[in-house]
Parts: sequence; C-alpha cells; structure tokens
Amino acid sequence: MNHMTPPSTQATALDAQALVTALARDARLAQRQLAAMPSNARAAALHLAADALRAAMPAVLAANAEDLAAGKARGLSGAMLDRLALDEARLAGIAEAVDAVADLPDPVGQVIDASERPNGLKFQRIRVPIGTIGIIYESRPNVTADAAALCVRAGNAALLRGGSEAVHSNRAIHAALVEGLVAGGVPAEAVQLVPSQDRACVGAMLTASGLIDMIVPRGGKSLVARVQADARVPVLAHLDGINHTYVHAAAEPDMAKAIAVNAKLRRTGICGSMETLLIDAAFPAAAAVVAALIEAGCEVRGDGRAQALDPRVIPASADDWDTEYLDSIASVAIVDGLEDALAHIARYSSAHTDAIVTSDSAVAERFLTEVDSAIVMHNASSQFADGGEFGLGAEIGIATGRLHARGPVALEGLTTYKWQVRGQGQTRP
Amino acid sequence: MNHMTPPSTQATALDAQALVTALARDARLAQRQLAAMPSNARAAALHLAADALRAAMPAVLAANAEDLAAGKARGLSGAMLDRLALDEARLAGIAEAVDAVADLPDPVGQVIDASERPNGLKFQRIRVPIGTIGIIYESRPNVTADAAALCVRAGNAALLRGGSEAVHSNRAIHAALVEGLVAGGVPAEAVQLVPSQDRACVGAMLTASGLIDMIVPRGGKSLVARVQADARVPVLAHLDGINHTYVHAAAEPDMAKAIAVNAKLRRTGICGSMETLLIDAAFPAAAAVVAALIEAGCEVRGDGRAQALDPRVIPASADDWDTEYLDSIASVAIVDGLEDALAHIARYSSAHTDAIVTSDSAVAERFLTEVDSAIVMHNASSQFADGGEFGLGAEIGIATGRLHARGPVALEGLTTYKWQVRGQGQTRP
Repeated sequence: MNHMTPPSTQATALDAQALVTALARDARLAQRQLAAMPSNARAAALHLAADALRAAMPAVLAANAEDLAAGKARGLSGAMLDRLALDEARLAGIAEAVDAVADLPDPVGQVIDASERPNGLKFQRIRVPIGTIGIIYESRPNVTADAAALCVRAGNAALLRGGSEAVHSNRAIHAALVEGLVAGGVPAEAVQLVPSQDRACVGAMLTASGLIDMIVPRGGKSLVARVQADARVPVLAHLDGINHTYVHAAAEPDMAKAIAVNAKLRRTGICGSMETLLIDAAFPAAAAVVAALIEAGCEVRGDGRAQALDPRVIPASADDWDTEYLDSIASVAIVDGLEDALAHIARYSSAHTDAIVTSDSAVAERFLTEVDSAIVMHNASSQFADGGEFGLGAEIGIATGRLHARGPVALEGLTTYKWQVRGQGQTRP
Repeated sequence: MNHMTPPSTQATALDAQALVTALARDARLAQRQLAAMPSNARAAALHLAADALRAAMPAVLAANAEDLAAGKARGLSGAMLDRLALDEARLAGIAEAVDAVADLPDPVGQVIDASERPNGLKFQRIRVPIGTIGIIYESRPNVTADAAALCVRAGNAALLRGGSEAVHSNRAIHAALVEGLVAGGVPAEAVQLVPSQDRACVGAMLTASGLIDMIVPRGGKSLVARVQADARVPVLAHLDGINHTYVHAAAEPDMAKAIAVNAKLRRTGICGSMETLLIDAAFPAAAAVVAALIEAGCEVRGDGRAQALDPRVIPASADDWDTEYLDSIASVAIVDGLEDALAHIARYSSAHTDAIVTSDSAVAERFLTEVDSAIVMHNASSQFADGGEFGLGAEIGIATGRLHARGPVALEGLTTYKWQVRGQGQTRP
C-alpha cells in the first residue's frame, strides 16, 4: 500500500475492493447455476426479462427523466444528453434487442472439433462460458440490457458498472431485467449492477484477477485507455478506429466515390467509420472522389498532392494521420502503389478495419493477406464493421487486441472451451 | 518512477527496457517477413535449422559442459543439473523435435468459417500469426529449440529469455538454429535470444505491451507466479496441476487401480500427474486401490475415512488438498457421491486436468459437463494431459486461464484470426 495515499481514499479503495469481491463471489456461484440450465431455459428467461422491461417502461422513463434533469443541471453536453435519453421507442428497441439475443443460437456446448487417437482415446473441444464478465460503461443505459443479455445467453454472469450520469436509468433497467430473469429461474446474482458509484469500484474490478474473468469497457477513448492501462484482468476492447480506405489505381471510379463517401459520412461517430483515404497516384479519378467527399459535407485535410487535386483541401498536419476524428473530417494522402499504401497502413492503422477498392483481384488478395488488422475489406464500406452486419447478431464490442477474439465480439467471444477426453481405462505407457 | 529505487538499479531497468524494446522492434519487422513466406518455405527453413543443430553438436555439447561445470561450482541440485545436461542422444532428440514441428500442418491461412450475407458481402475468418511471442524459461536448454520451432512454424517471431544456468548451451543452440533458419530465408531477427542475463530484462519483457504480443513462461511455480503477477502482456500458462481422479461407486475395480497408480506414479514430476484421489464411499474396492498406490511406492495422506482403509495411510493436513506434490505422494479423500466429488473439485482443483473412473456413462457425462477444468477425462489417466498425446504435435505449454487457449497449447494457440470481407461495391444503408 502506498503510504502517500490519504487515509480516506485508502478506506474507500478497501471498501470498494470488499464490495467488488463480495459481488464477484456471488456472481461466480450464480454463474455455475446459470451454466447448468438448459439452453432453452436461458433463452426463455431472457424473453421474460424483455417482457419485464416492457412492463417497467413507466418506471424506467421516470428514472431516466431524473438522470436527464440531473445531467442538465450538471451542464452535460447535448450529445451526452442524447446518449442518455430514453423514450418509448428507444426502450421498446432495447427490449426487442434482448428478445433477439435470446433467439440467437447458443454457443455453449458446441463441439469445436473431435478426434480419436490410435490408443482409443476420444478427444473433443466443447464451448463453455467464460465465467464472470465485467462491463464498464458510460452514459448509454441500453448497455445495461444489451450486455446482460449477451452474457446470460452464453451462460456468463455479468457484473455491470454504468456511468454515474445514468445511475437511475441503469437501476430501473437492471431491476426489470432481474425480475424477468428470476421468474425464468436465473439466479438474481447472475446479473448484478455495482450498487456504488464510487470510482474506486472500477479500479477494484480491473484488478479482480480470479474473481472476474474478462472486462469489456464500452465508452469513449479515455475510459478504454484507463481500463487497458490499469487492468490485470484480460480486457476485450479497441482504443481507436483509425480506419483506412485505399483506392487502388484499378478502382472503378463510381464505386470508389460511393464507398469513400459512405465509409466516412454515413455515421461519423462510429468506430468503423473511415478516417484516412489513401488514393493511388495512378488512379485517374482522384479529384472526383475528393470532390464528392467535400460536396457531401466533409472537411478534407490532405498532403501536398491531395491539396493539388482541389483548392478546398486543407493542409494536413503530421497529427492528422494518427487522428480518429469521429466527425465529418477525413485525411487524404496520395500513395504510389500498393506497397506504399501497405506501409502507410502498417504505420498508422489502429488495426480495426482497413479496406481496398480495386477491380484487380490479385492486388485485393495481397491487401487482404498483408494488412494485419482485425477486419480487412475489399470493395466494401468500412461502416459494415459491426457484429450485426457480420451476421453475428448483437455484439458486445469490437476488439483490436490479438488474443482470444478479434473484430466484432459476439456470443462466441463470450465463451471459452474445455477438452473432454473419453477412454476405456487407458493408462499412459 | 519510484524514488526509493537505488540509482544503479534504475539505470539497469532503463537499459533493460531499451534493450528489450530494440529487440522487439527488430522482431516485429522480421515477423512480417516471416509471415509473408510460403508455408513450405518456413517448414524447409526449420528442417535446415534441425540440420544445423545436428552439425553443431560438438559446439553445443562443449557449451553445455561449461554450464554444467559452472552449475556444479554453484552447487545446483542433482535434479537441476539433470534438467540442464545434454548428451548426443538428447541433442539428437531436440533436433528431431524441430523436424517434427516443421512437418506439422500449418495453421496459418486456415479458414475457420465463412458466410455470405443477403447483401452479397462474403465473410471469412482466417488464422494468422499472433506476432511476437516472448518465452521466459529456466534451466532446460531444449526449450530454446522447441519454442523457437513452434513460433516459426506458425509465423511468429520468438524472443527467448532462458535461465542463467543454461546461458552457454542456449547461445550455442540458438546460434545453430539461426544459421539454419537464415539459410532457409528466415530473417535472423525472427528468433532472438535476449543477450543479457540481467533479471531486469524479464521485467521489461513482461511490460512490453504493444511490442510483445504474448508471454509463455516455462518453468517452476515461482517463475510462473512472478510472470502472472507482473505481466501487462497477455500470458499463457498454468501455475499448478492440482489434478483429481474421482473413483465413482460404479468404477471397475481393476481399472480404478490401474488408472490411480498410473495417474500418480508414471511420472510424478509432470503437471498432469494426479495429486488427489477421491474415492466414493460406495465404491467397494477402496482399500485395494489405496493399497495398490502404497505398494507401488506412494505415500498416501488421507482424511479420517481413508485412514480407516489402511493403517499405512498418514493423516492429511488441511494444506494437503491444496498441494501439488510433484512427488510420490497422494492425498486421498472419501466422498459421498458425485455431488460431493464435484464440490471438492470445484473448491480445490487448479482447473488443469480432472478425471472420473466409472462404468456409469450418465454419471461420466455429468462429470465431463460440470467440472470446469481445462481438461476433463473419463476412464483415462491424467498423465495423458499432453499436447503430443492429444494429437497436437508438440505443445508450447498447458494453459489453465480461460481466454484464448485452454489445455495443451500447440500451433493453433500460437495463432489468432482476422476477418476478410469481400464485396462488390457495397455501401451501408
């Protein structure tokens, strides 16, 4: 213990640790019961949770109004208030999403592979839940329901720690969910909302090795960065989505234009949006693509050759190539062929989603092989980087780490496996 | 920086960090070249490395003699000297193991799954190397070759940090391997031996986030415990192998006897050996199984009911259930049915390998489902807990963590995946 820490903070940290330990121990026991339930019972309980959420709509909206009033009083930005705000339609959508997760195929019990050895031993790997998942999130109250549903579907306990701005909304949603889950036979402790808003609880979760098996942060860059820096528990997350689209010399001009505009501007605030457009010097319609972006409302910051294409292009600074704008801004660089594009991406990509537009399939295959990002795309908009679009159903997040799961993380990413070995009395010689 | 650290230690830590950073940066570049090599070229280079190792036999044995002499002078135990010692047969075995790894099927490029969405987008997940693997090990010089071969086969760079007792042996083996690999077109920096024995280098490796992608510790419990406690880089390892064999009421007596004796005594020093035998109170031949263990040379420490079976059973203390003996000692508890056995295992197992002996297949299936260990076995000796016995070829280790890979970790565990998305110009609505 650091002797410089003031006694009150120390006490708080110890209290938070004791609280998180107690919650996680209860979660562990509940998770064993949850995992032992048949798959259809877990699904049915989630449908009951969705029903309970619909039935609790007035209570949830009243709680949300409290959060909104407090947020306005605290001077939260319009964007933050919008992330926080619920209405009947949004809440109905949240309940529907829980129903949809309930209907997803259960990964638990799936046989990954099986083999038999010459000595007659039979081996198979089957998927099992990870255990207890900690979710640390900010102002979006829908995460309470989304994350809980995904965890429960795959037999995991969820320990939820939402942002203080959404505390009343989260409590109301959590209470409704648990009411439905318990009616369906799921132990209440399988989905717990950390009852304290003390920030020390986040620290206690991040260091709860052996008690929490995985942490998923959901929120802005500062939250994710803190979690990645402080966690001793494995973390599944991405920090940045610095995504590139490379328009190759052999790109079809209209396709390049459509993909660039969509990848950047369909929704600028999502992690799959394009931040940097690389245009091959040999691509004949470069000016048209840049003009299309600008005319669609995008600020374009370019290197010298990109500036020469259009007087509306603003000079890019060195920082631009490292920046996730999450806004109607794109950086544009002119590159000399595939190698140059690969080098730029290797240097600046955050390994989230990088794409190529080309009609040359050999070049496309090289790009798909050599770019070392979680998602690589050919002739498609990077805005498709989403578990739903990948056919995975809901996602708990997108991971840019290299272990366990990469790209959109859905139910399978919330499982691990074990080896089952069946013998007839074999001993090892 | 902690101001209490003496300046000289500080300087050492900074030097170690600079060294590891430089090595890891070189490894990253070399890994990209290695990953771009065709699979058969990587295999051929490994065969050349095995040949070079055979050719270097006199040099390696001379280096090993130096280590042995130094070890004797330092008073290393006989067991440690044995782990360190090489002879022509052992070295030939090491080279053969490299050849065997070269011949294993390459996981890189394997398609895990593929799908097509209604909008025409095609998705596939393909296996790719993890990147740079750090191996931290103790006195066994064979790890230098085994770990390097596995990493290279799966397209990874290896950063090797062996124990100081084996420093000359490791350098000689490493030099031979690299000579062969380079002749086969693999960049020398793809397999690096940390040139300094400064212990601060281990700390620098453990905290090299973004430079080293995974750490595999190979050695005793104190090494693994240190690595798990200090690492900020993901670690694949197991700390203990506190493995249980549960002899159910419906076990076939001769099979129970043979499995118990083999699981405990075939080799007591491996992580898959049984440490605790649970015998069902309703199993009629309990005394015969205990007698067989004792007569095969095993010290048996039992609870009250186990002591009543045989006067040679020594009373077990509370610590025995938590102890990995790695010796000819077993703890024996009498349990009342499956539930009691499951509860004992849930409380004391290190989640490595737990087994049941029974002729009742329904009971066996419940055991295989409900015991939450990396490996669960029915009617087989836990000594089979080994990648080779699982048909995986060589293993880099056994993992008892819950993420990425569990149980024996072989080539597949040294890969991750990426998503390749192929479109025809799709933009997201």
